[in-house]
Amino acid sequence: MTSSPTIAAVRLTPVLVADPPLLNTQGVHQPQTPRLVIEVETTGGVVGLGETYGDGHCLALAARLAEALKGHPVANVNLLLRIAESLAASDGGDLDESVSAGGLRGAQSLHKLVRSVVSGFEVACLDALGRTLGLPVHVLLGGKVRDQVPYAAYLFYKWDRHPGGPVDHWGAALDPAGLVAQARRMVELHGFDSFKLKGGVFPPEQEVAAIRALAEAFPGRPLRLDPNGAWSVPTALRVAEQLSDVLEYLEDPTAGTAAMAELAARSPLPLATNMCVTGFEEVREAFTAGAVQVVLSDHHYWGGLRATQQLAAVCRTFGVGLSMHSNTHLGISLAAMTQVAATLPNLDHPCDSHYPWLTEDVITSQHRFHSGSLTVTDTPGLGVELDRTALERLHRRWTEDDGTLRERDDTAAIRRAVPGWTSSTW
Amino acid sequence: MTSSPTIAAVRLTPVLVADPPLLNTQGVHQPQTPRLVIEVETTGGVVGLGETYGDGHCLALAARLAEALKGHPVANVNLLLRIAESLAASDGGDLDESVSAGGLRGAQSLHKLVRSVVSGFEVACLDALGRTLGLPVHVLLGGKVRDQVPYAAYLFYKWDRHPGGPVDHWGAALDPAGLVAQARRMVELHGFDSFKLKGGVFPPEQEVAAIRALAEAFPGRPLRLDPNGAWSVPTALRVAEQLSDVLEYLEDPTAGTAAMAELAARSPLPLATNMCVTGFEEVREAFTAGAVQVVLSDHHYWGGLRATQQLAAVCRTFGVGLSMHSNTHLGISLAAMTQVAATLPNLDHPCDSHYPWLTEDVITSQHRFHSGSLTVTDTPGLGVELDRTALERLHRRWTEDDGTLRERDDTAAIRRAVPGWTSSTW
Repeated sequence: MTSSPTIAAVRLTPVLVADPPLLNTQGVHQPQTPRLVIEVETTGGVVGLGETYGDGHCLALAARLAEALKGHPVANVNLLLRIAESLAASDGGDLDESVSAGGLRGAQSLHKLVRSVVSGFEVACLDALGRTLGLPVHVLLGGKVRDQVPYAAYLFYKWDRHPGGPVDHWGAALDPAGLVAQARRMVELHGFDSFKLKGGVFPPEQEVAAIRALAEAFPGRPLRLDPNGAWSVPTALRVAEQLSDVLEYLEDPTAGTAAMAELAARSPLPLATNMCVTGFEEVREAFTAGAVQVVLSDHHYWGGLRATQQLAAVCRTFGVGLSMHSNTHLGISLAAMTQVAATLPNLDHPCDSHYPWLTEDVITSQHRFHSGSLTVTDTPGLGVELDRTALERLHRRWTEDDGTLRERDDTAAIRRAVPGWTSSTW
Repeated sequence: MTSSPTIAAVRLTPVLVADPPLLNTQGVHQPQTPRLVIEVETTGGVVGLGETYGDGHCLALAARLAEALKGHPVANVNLLLRIAESLAASDGGDLDESVSAGGLRGAQSLHKLVRSVVSGFEVACLDALGRTLGLPVHVLLGGKVRDQVPYAAYLFYKWDRHPGGPVDHWGAALDPAGLVAQARRMVELHGFDSFKLKGGVFPPEQEVAAIRALAEAFPGRPLRLDPNGAWSVPTALRVAEQLSDVLEYLEDPTAGTAAMAELAARSPLPLATNMCVTGFEEVREAFTAGAVQVVLSDHHYWGGLRATQQLAAVCRTFGVGLSMHSNTHLGISLAAMTQVAATLPNLDHPCDSHYPWLTEDVITSQHRFHSGSLTVTDTPGLGVELDRTALERLHRRWTEDDGTLRERDDTAAIRRAVPGWTSSTW
């Protein structure tokens, strides 16, 4: 055997990464968001990279998993979930119990938290294995079926600055004109061909007007609107009817499987989700009820890259479309998303990407979109290298934080600017 | 990069392999069954092994695929299906059209034929890649979750000899006593702990009596009965009620999704299948209707080892049990079955294995069951070596055959002994 290394050590480095003041139904993105960088070092001295949520629950479980994995074969990623589940359950934890697992993903559970932690370790193991073998991660996943992965421009209503901070280079976007300008800049910089607007921020008629303005500015381009479940079924149905000629789908227009199914039965538009179906245990009910027509996969939600391939197979089998969700993450995760997306025969829509909003990273060479796509690298592993200076700087920021930002909380963040703010539903 | 070899050559060797006179609803196994041995040779001179059905349709498509794959990266198995589908469709073939794809698998289609051919190539590619990298195939599939794969004794009604041939060393089994004796011998030789009886041969009451005799001889051991869809719903329901205290499940008691669903709604026993659901296109309807509670996967049916993992994910997601089907195959396929079975978290029942009936093989060292299980090897690739002398001998047999046996046809075989024989249904 040339190599079947085991895990010699795992380094966990929580960081705070700058994030613009992007608005959503929960509030506003914090000035900095916690993420966890995972380094898996093999007995052969090879280091693989992964990342996941950096909130407290994640860090605690990640620390225990890191300890448990010493001596584990780096190539065996199929066992990671079982090991993490038994750690989580060893405290008497019920995997179905409600635990914050991060992300705007509907129901939260210990099971989902476990999968989020496992996803970062799985990616790091695959990166380490790929580097050891001289093979890109996509080959470890059976090989790429495309050389370019298309992404969509991810548009946000936003303030021009964080409270008390300097104006950022994107400026404000609080009305249709502001969003169109933002979209034009996204196209200029990255060449995106399709657009997603994070909604649920303003009353629906304002967001309908924004989509209309985008449709006029970019005729014929795929458009999506995502209010993160902030609408009632009647409101969502009204929006769907108003925008049926310009949207390719509505994303989480209303909350929960029952409401999505009720809406789907009457909506002229397909419904997509990264909230109603974010774990395998939610698929059966939602698919059987016809509640969703597109699943926005996210390897941080589903338990890793292999789990994402399995989700894709489930969607393919049940005639449900597939795309990919993205939240605030670093370039390590974007590399992982691109590698797995390259292997999915049924990637039916361009992936979301939060990456253009990032102004700092922990990798030495930031990803660059060309014509809205990323080229699938054949460099061994994920094809990214850690910038230790940057990692140290972002970690120091985490260390020096007084605790305000270590748990991502968009509602707390907006209340620091708008005391008493509460989320709206329509 | 240490290695990402491409395919330099593919050798296809059809063989005829001896098979005992086992009875089923279609007739009797031929004295020899066609199989196709696939050797994929990489640019690095490494040879990987695969096998699949050896009937004419398979050979023809395999020959075209072999030609098309020259220069293809051996590590890219995700593209094999697409390449084979476009070859099959390039003749104006509709993938849904009815084409014999081999096996007792219900509806036959060009799509299923394509998957059967792809499965042999995928296994050969994975074997070649594993040998190149020094890694067992299970590692290429994400790693094993068990070190032993359990198999069940596969019991058959059988004659003591092929028409005009010598008595074989198993002797006849045409009644309960004969089957119990066969089962005892299976246990003595291989240590199996559970039993499957191929039924659909005699009237149901005789097969019920056989299961009763097995239950008495092996109290508490898991038992299954598989009449290959030969019963009506009322007959199947009657058998299910009579045997509900001793069977773990009934396998394809009746034919087709509608009948299976009708039966499942009233049956006290779970229903398993390797006929009603043998392609991804059949899953949705069957699972939604609750027609099957256990799918017997078969990598030759589903398109390879990765496809088997995807099927397992689909079953897991929908709460459907999983086991594994086996027909007449060589040790190459048994190695492949064992490697993939080792990676499935939800292998809910011991796998079927036809292997104990085999008296010759094309590998140098035959698999040996211990306590009914096979040990999952960590030897690179599949862990089996080709016996070229044996391969040549079985190929010569195929070459010299007058055409009688090159297409497996159990009905033609039984009619040579019992002129005018027709299959029975009850």
